[in-house]
Amino acid sequence: MADPRFFDRAGPFTLAELASRSGAEVASGADPDLLLSDVAPLDQAGPGQLGFLDNRKYVEAFRASKAGACVVHPSLADRAPAGMALLLSPKPYRAYALCAQAFYPLPVASGAVSPAAHIDPTARLGEGVEVAAGAVVEAGAEIGPRSRIAANAVIGRNVRVGADSVIGACASLSHCLVGDRVVIYPGARIGQDGFGFAMDVAGHVRVPQLGRVIIDDDVEVGANVTIDRGAGPDTVIGRGCMIDNLVQIGHNVTLGTGCVIVAQSGISGSTRFDHHAVLAAQAGVAGHLTIGAGARIAAQSGVMRDVPPMTEVLGTPAQPKRQYFRQVAMMARLARGRSGRGDEHDGNE
Amino acid sequence: MADPRFFDRAGPFTLAELASRSGAEVASGADPDLLLSDVAPLDQAGPGQLGFLDNRKYVEAFRASKAGACVVHPSLADRAPAGMALLLSPKPYRAYALCAQAFYPLPVASGAVSPAAHIDPTARLGEGVEVAAGAVVEAGAEIGPRSRIAANAVIGRNVRVGADSVIGACASLSHCLVGDRVVIYPGARIGQDGFGFAMDVAGHVRVPQLGRVIIDDDVEVGANVTIDRGAGPDTVIGRGCMIDNLVQIGHNVTLGTGCVIVAQSGISGSTRFDHHAVLAAQAGVAGHLTIGAGARIAAQSGVMRDVPPMTEVLGTPAQPKRQYFRQVAMMARLARGRSGRGDEHDGNE
Amino acid sequence: MADPRFFDRAGPFTLAELASRSGAEVASGADPDLLLSDVAPLDQAGPGQLGFLDNRKYVEAFRASKAGACVVHPSLADRAPAGMALLLSPKPYRAYALCAQAFYPLPVASGAVSPAAHIDPTARLGEGVEVAAGAVVEAGAEIGPRSRIAANAVIGRNVRVGADSVIGACASLSHCLVGDRVVIYPGARIGQDGFGFAMDVAGHVRVPQLGRVIIDDDVEVGANVTIDRGAGPDTVIGRGCMIDNLVQIGHNVTLGTGCVIVAQSGISGSTRFDHHAVLAAQAGVAGHLTIGAGARIAAQSGVMRDVPPMTEVLGTPAQPKRQYFRQVAMMARLARGRSGRGDEHDGNE
Repeated sequence: MADPRFFDRAGPFTLAELASRSGAEVASGADPDLLLSDVAPLDQAGPGQLGFLDNRKYVEAFRASKAGACVVHPSLADRAPAGMALLLSPKPYRAYALCAQAFYPLPVASGAVSPAAHIDPTARLGEGVEVAAGAVVEAGAEIGPRSRIAANAVIGRNVRVGADSVIGACASLSHCLVGDRVVIYPGARIGQDGFGFAMDVAGHVRVPQLGRVIIDDDVEVGANVTIDRGAGPDTVIGRGCMIDNLVQIGHNVTLGTGCVIVAQSGISGSTRFDHHAVLAAQAGVAGHLTIGAGARIAAQSGVMRDVPPMTEVLGTPAQPKRQYFRQVAMMARLARGRSGRGDEHDGNE
Repeated sequence: MADPRFFDRAGPFTLAELASRSGAEVASGADPDLLLSDVAPLDQAGPGQLGFLDNRKYVEAFRASKAGACVVHPSLADRAPAGMALLLSPKPYRAYALCAQAFYPLPVASGAVSPAAHIDPTARLGEGVEVAAGAVVEAGAEIGPRSRIAANAVIGRNVRVGADSVIGACASLSHCLVGDRVVIYPGARIGQDGFGFAMDVAGHVRVPQLGRVIIDDDVEVGANVTIDRGAGPDTVIGRGCMIDNLVQIGHNVTLGTGCVIVAQSGISGSTRFDHHAVLAAQAGVAGHLTIGAGARIAAQSGVMRDVPPMTEVLGTPAQPKRQYFRQVAMMARLARGRSGRGDEHDGNE
Repeated sequence: MADPRFFDRAGPFTLAELASRSGAEVASGADPDLLLSDVAPLDQAGPGQLGFLDNRKYVEAFRASKAGACVVHPSLADRAPAGMALLLSPKPYRAYALCAQAFYPLPVASGAVSPAAHIDPTARLGEGVEVAAGAVVEAGAEIGPRSRIAANAVIGRNVRVGADSVIGACASLSHCLVGDRVVIYPGARIGQDGFGFAMDVAGHVRVPQLGRVIIDDDVEVGANVTIDRGAGPDTVIGRGCMIDNLVQIGHNVTLGTGCVIVAQSGISGSTRFDHHAVLAAQAGVAGHLTIGAGARIAAQSGVMRDVPPMTEVLGTPAQPKRQYFRQVAMMARLARGRSGRGDEHDGNE
């Protein structure tokens, strides 16, 4: 059970209610009025709790589970233990996520503006906005209804934040327009100057960065992420993008809808990601490239050329997956051959 | 045009004035009194606007441009469309940067100290210093004339910041001396303990870090960068260095004049960069090395040995450029040969 | 000598006192009552100062040193210059670290709570707690005796911090329990949501993250580090772990006692490090793996499989050390052979 010091639980909910919220279907034989009070892993769940099965690897845990109910793919329903109520969904993890959100919704803005917040008189706060202690909202900034500004966050001059958004503790925003239902995590830096200058031995000369950062609706920006504003065009983060911690996004970058950018990766200036492209952890993409829709760039890859849609690449320089693993295998064979020693001798290294 | 909510534009300026500020020359036939009101990309610029051409790739855009004036290399002047006024410079990007700075200068310190700033009575603020809401200036700190301390920044005990510098929102400084015209971006961490301890299974024992961080004039330090103070000697950032976001600089590191350190790269303890060395994105340099003047370390490289001056290295372990690309090509050939399949079969990966 | 603006020095101490604090032994012939006033590098130390020798490379500096006293391994004692007092220790760097801590102890909490700090009336502060200006302590939070909360730090709702801990400037904590003698550096982000969601083209669906971050005693967490809270289980940082700057630790990660995690490295969700494992700079570890006790993962490595205890791996994909260097050497030979050109031709690259 989630630590009640940190989590406020809603509910209980009936099976029917959870089905309706998650788009799942109550399996025949299950009681739609069954009351459930929490979510839990299959191996820990009890009678009043909801688990989920998303991976065939865990079928045994499913069979042995004491969970009162479970979200499961229809094809695995017949493996359920007797008496377990089922919610059927072709996307069980997604349906489970929606059920879990019912029990543990994002905290609602309290509507309280702390007397210890520093809000410029020309800033405009929508209805129900919450501003915590130490937060600074500068001149002309505008915060949409029900958004929450956490402690010691800074909303810069004339920045616009939409409705139902959350700006995390100690985050700072400038030169940007932020949509609705956006979550900016603690310490994220949005809108500072991009890294643009004329290199010169007599002293580098900074080029004024005259664009903005545009963050569309339903985006999440991880902790201590940095997103620079555009140099002239804007830096644009498309609707529903998920950006993990410590990511760097350079000036003029454009991300399409639903891109996933994993921790510590970086995207150089003016590169475009089409919708639903994925950049895995610690990978880097050079500037002025196009990454096609649905492309997947593996962890730690270094991308120096465009990546076609739906392509998976890895390595530095990044190459298609099959080719990469062929090289890895080839090198291992060669190294064994040349040294005349097998890998089994390396056991103690 | 830059969003007026975020950018205050100066001007207009005459062509002659811009020539004088940028060191460019008014081309014969151009009207030195021509008034220009803004900068713009060649393909968007209109009659009152100044563009620039720095790359032969864009000669066609130059020929078709409606810009009233353009900064260009003398060798390309004859490609200009009829009626366009030219500013000639052997370094057109640098000259353009200086013109753009004329239109969009760094904001001047307002001289206002927010009543919501927390300034220790023993701190000293120079003439015209601006301190925003929530900023903290601790005991004995000294801020030079016309510097700006942004919202929720923290200037630690006895820290010295020079004149005309900017400390970004939520940045924190301790144990450091900062020069003039330095820009520290939001969330940068300067002067905390370096990562020094005696490893011991019975419990690692921290070694007190007794040095400082010295940042010379005209340096820029990117968002969420971390620069640790020295262990005994100081960590030193030379004049005019440009440091991008999320960079890590370890204790006792010394950077010479004008080094360029790109995003997410890291420099381990006691390594020295001579002047104008470049470390590209996500690269790493081991400790106790010397990187020669003007050396260039490519993105994602891992440097384990000294790099001679003016040398370009890449890869992990880093090696000279030609050698690296020869290996990459050799591996691709071998992998093709061994598998008996051509790369063209991989099109759908 | 450490800059007195930034460092308060304790002492002087007698040789006997330093021996007792560091577990070293006063060498025969040395005066146990010799007074020492500071630590210093061997080549700079004078009569009243203590140096150390930990590496045979510096024996010449030792022989030439004017230090009044020196910590040294017994086996090197006979190289000391005449008149130098010796402290003998089988772990001279550790003993030196303890002596240096005597001269430069961590600042003691002043017990002062700044009137410019924002402390919720339901928060509980232990005896002697120091809270600096701009710091925010939210409802129900509990800070143990003698801990220090630096300027503009944020301690979230119901967070618990133990005794004698330090929370750095602009750091933020939520959903976490922190032990005694823990040091959180400036800008660290502890306890935000992990990166968990059901990917879906119709819109990714966030999975509520219901765990916490548990940080055991004597841990150090570097500047701008991000440690996400668990998804259901907790994220756990074991006793005495040392975590360098800009590290990312994903949800459900568990670190055993005394692990060392170097700058800019990252650990993906649900991976476990057993005690005293080391992850070097910029390395990455995939999710759901086990890294054995005392294993060492080299800088920039990419780990995709479990690593056995006491094993050293490097490269991407990571492999045992000997195997990795054999491949590097093999590739260099092949590249030379294929091109018909020796490396000596690359001198000017």
